[in-house]
Amino acid sequence: MERDRRGSLTVVVRRKVGKIFVAEQEKGSIFPIDCLKDFSAKVFMHFGIAEVDARQAADVLAKSDLRGIDSHGVARLHTYFDMLTLGRINPKPNIKIVREKVSVATVDGDNGLGLVVGPRANEIAMDKAEKYGSGWVSVCHTNHFGIAGYYPLKAVERDLIGWAMTNTTKLVAPLWGAERMLGTNPIAIAFPGYKEPPVVIDMATSAVAYGKIEMALRKKAKIPRGWVVDKNGGMTTDPQDMIDGGAQLPLGSEREMGGHKGYALAAMVDVLCAVLSGANWGPFAPPFALRQEIPARSVGKGIGHFFGAMQIDGFIDKDEFKKQIDEWIHVFRKTKPAAGTNGPLIPGDPEREAEAIRSKEGIPLLKPVVDDLLDISRRTRIPFEVN
Amino acid sequence: MERDRRGSLTVVVRRKVGKIFVAEQEKGSIFPIDCLKDFSAKVFMHFGIAEVDARQAADVLAKSDLRGIDSHGVARLHTYFDMLTLGRINPKPNIKIVREKVSVATVDGDNGLGLVVGPRANEIAMDKAEKYGSGWVSVCHTNHFGIAGYYPLKAVERDLIGWAMTNTTKLVAPLWGAERMLGTNPIAIAFPGYKEPPVVIDMATSAVAYGKIEMALRKKAKIPRGWVVDKNGGMTTDPQDMIDGGAQLPLGSEREMGGHKGYALAAMVDVLCAVLSGANWGPFAPPFALRQEIPARSVGKGIGHFFGAMQIDGFIDKDEFKKQIDEWIHVFRKTKPAAGTNGPLIPGDPEREAEAIRSKEGIPLLKPVVDDLLDISRRTRIPFEVN
Repeated sequence: MERDRRGSLTVVVRRKVGKIFVAEQEKGSIFPIDCLKDFSAKVFMHFGIAEVDARQAADVLAKSDLRGIDSHGVARLHTYFDMLTLGRINPKPNIKIVREKVSVATVDGDNGLGLVVGPRANEIAMDKAEKYGSGWVSVCHTNHFGIAGYYPLKAVERDLIGWAMTNTTKLVAPLWGAERMLGTNPIAIAFPGYKEPPVVIDMATSAVAYGKIEMALRKKAKIPRGWVVDKNGGMTTDPQDMIDGGAQLPLGSEREMGGHKGYALAAMVDVLCAVLSGANWGPFAPPFALRQEIPARSVGKGIGHFFGAMQIDGFIDKDEFKKQIDEWIHVFRKTKPAAGTNGPLIPGDPEREAEAIRSKEGIPLLKPVVDDLLDISRRTRIPFEVN
Repeated sequence: MERDRRGSLTVVVRRKVGKIFVAEQEKGSIFPIDCLKDFSAKVFMHFGIAEVDARQAADVLAKSDLRGIDSHGVARLHTYFDMLTLGRINPKPNIKIVREKVSVATVDGDNGLGLVVGPRANEIAMDKAEKYGSGWVSVCHTNHFGIAGYYPLKAVERDLIGWAMTNTTKLVAPLWGAERMLGTNPIAIAFPGYKEPPVVIDMATSAVAYGKIEMALRKKAKIPRGWVVDKNGGMTTDPQDMIDGGAQLPLGSEREMGGHKGYALAAMVDVLCAVLSGANWGPFAPPFALRQEIPARSVGKGIGHFFGAMQIDGFIDKDEFKKQIDEWIHVFRKTKPAAGTNGPLIPGDPEREAEAIRSKEGIPLLKPVVDDLLDISRRTRIPFEVN
């Protein structure tokens, strides 16, 4: 990082591209994570959210920024702010178990922040895992819960295997469909290592993150075949075709390459999160952002999540498992590399690398994100200082 | 079906291509499922396998043939026969729970047939689900268990949500790798409907089934880019490059299309099935067929499976769930079709269609498969009649 002549920072933004971090020079500023976390918490408290919940919500956003998933961190604070301002999210939800049987439960989030409902439901799953070997919680009447990877990381801290899924607003067409019917419906799971860091899987079931299509739109660039279809369901390399009534494609993209599998995974997430909990499934999942249309039909309450936790000791000696995970990592790191690559990564590598750098060096935010935070500051009178 | 001039049958083989059944004229014969089932059971009993287990194993193979997954049915009986003949599979295993905690358990299959160990372990998961809301069983020291979809279908019969996974012999390279490190590691899950048939997901985590590469090899045809890499990890359209030290690619195929996601899913299956149970994981999973090399290193016992079952009533009223699944199916069937297609299928459609036809019309077997069965018949003196 260097100060440029105008005194502001020239930020080396480490942006995730192809699970490799490429350095990109952009105007922006760098913020210590604690400063962002504190600001976010105060913004949530501004709406009457209890301090413990506000700090919890801020922690989820911060984890995303730390792990380099810029799209899901404070860059989204303004959307949460808008939803709370309009009364679309309940700041004081009565989150409760509505049905339960030993190792499983359904939680009603009472339309609270997903960033609060999610951690609460995940905790129930983890507590059950410690008592009954495993715990599985489906959640209805909730909202966007941040990065799915946050939840299994919490489980790993307690030496559990953790799972998290959520359904989201429609963006993806089923294979052979010409309209948006499913969200990008992510699946996350993490396994603790002994001396090695955990294996952390956190993946959308779409071929690509929406953010990459957005980036191509801004740059007026073409996108690879297989990311999106146009309004007739035809393959296209023009990202504008997706905006004009098209849709994203599921992982696998087309039949020959396994597009039916990505669709099936998205369907699985949809059913576990939404049908099983009594939330809105498929195309009826309510949107997260204001610009998105609210579906005319409702088949349940809010969106849905699904959390799982398993106690390793219920299956095998915990340390034996963790040592085998270390060995798994060592063996996979030694895979013969494909020509022109450094060889396979271990799931979670790029995010961990980002976290190591960003917890020391701070979080680089682009100017539009900083402007959003300054706008919130102006409207709430919560101070936010740009260095 | 028509008799040709030589009196044998010209079989219209319904082969799964692109989740569409295309009719293909091939020489072969048609067999009633009960005849194949009975023959398989007697072959298993020939090795001293108890009748109840032998019939169970035959049922798994038959389900595969019924559902149109020709590669996993009696076409594999000769391989099981070989493994049993050589004493590589234990005909009288002492299958037992070696560790347990309320909703979870680990089962040691004592090197029995996966077709016997799998159903037993799945039953434990289902029993636990009925008692504790969910049941999760990791299995070590087992062998190939047939189609993954068999197990969740059993769960659905008991109004449960069922899951099954297994690790398999190495065939797939992790993204950016140039060698085989993981199996095609399938994931299956099924959800019961009310009046509609269940939604059944059963998918390998590789981009494509090995059978499709084999078919191209036989026809000396090119394959699409993204199915396999050569021994240097480079993309190739020549299936022979895979045989000559190459590997299959995970779902998503390359980084830009989400190949890291398919790799992550295969890794998840590997850990849940093998690391969690104490079986051989990754490249150390022992092979199913004789022609495949036995890995020099062993890190556990046999291969591993993972079964899950969840009682719907623990989460939500069972009938309410099943009616919503029906509605989910109706809504997804009405998706606007992509140009040139009939629109999206519901996961499980092609297999169910095959089952409806084949349970009436019988199972068409190609000549090499019939020859294999005749060879077994000759060697065991168990009668097998070709009509």
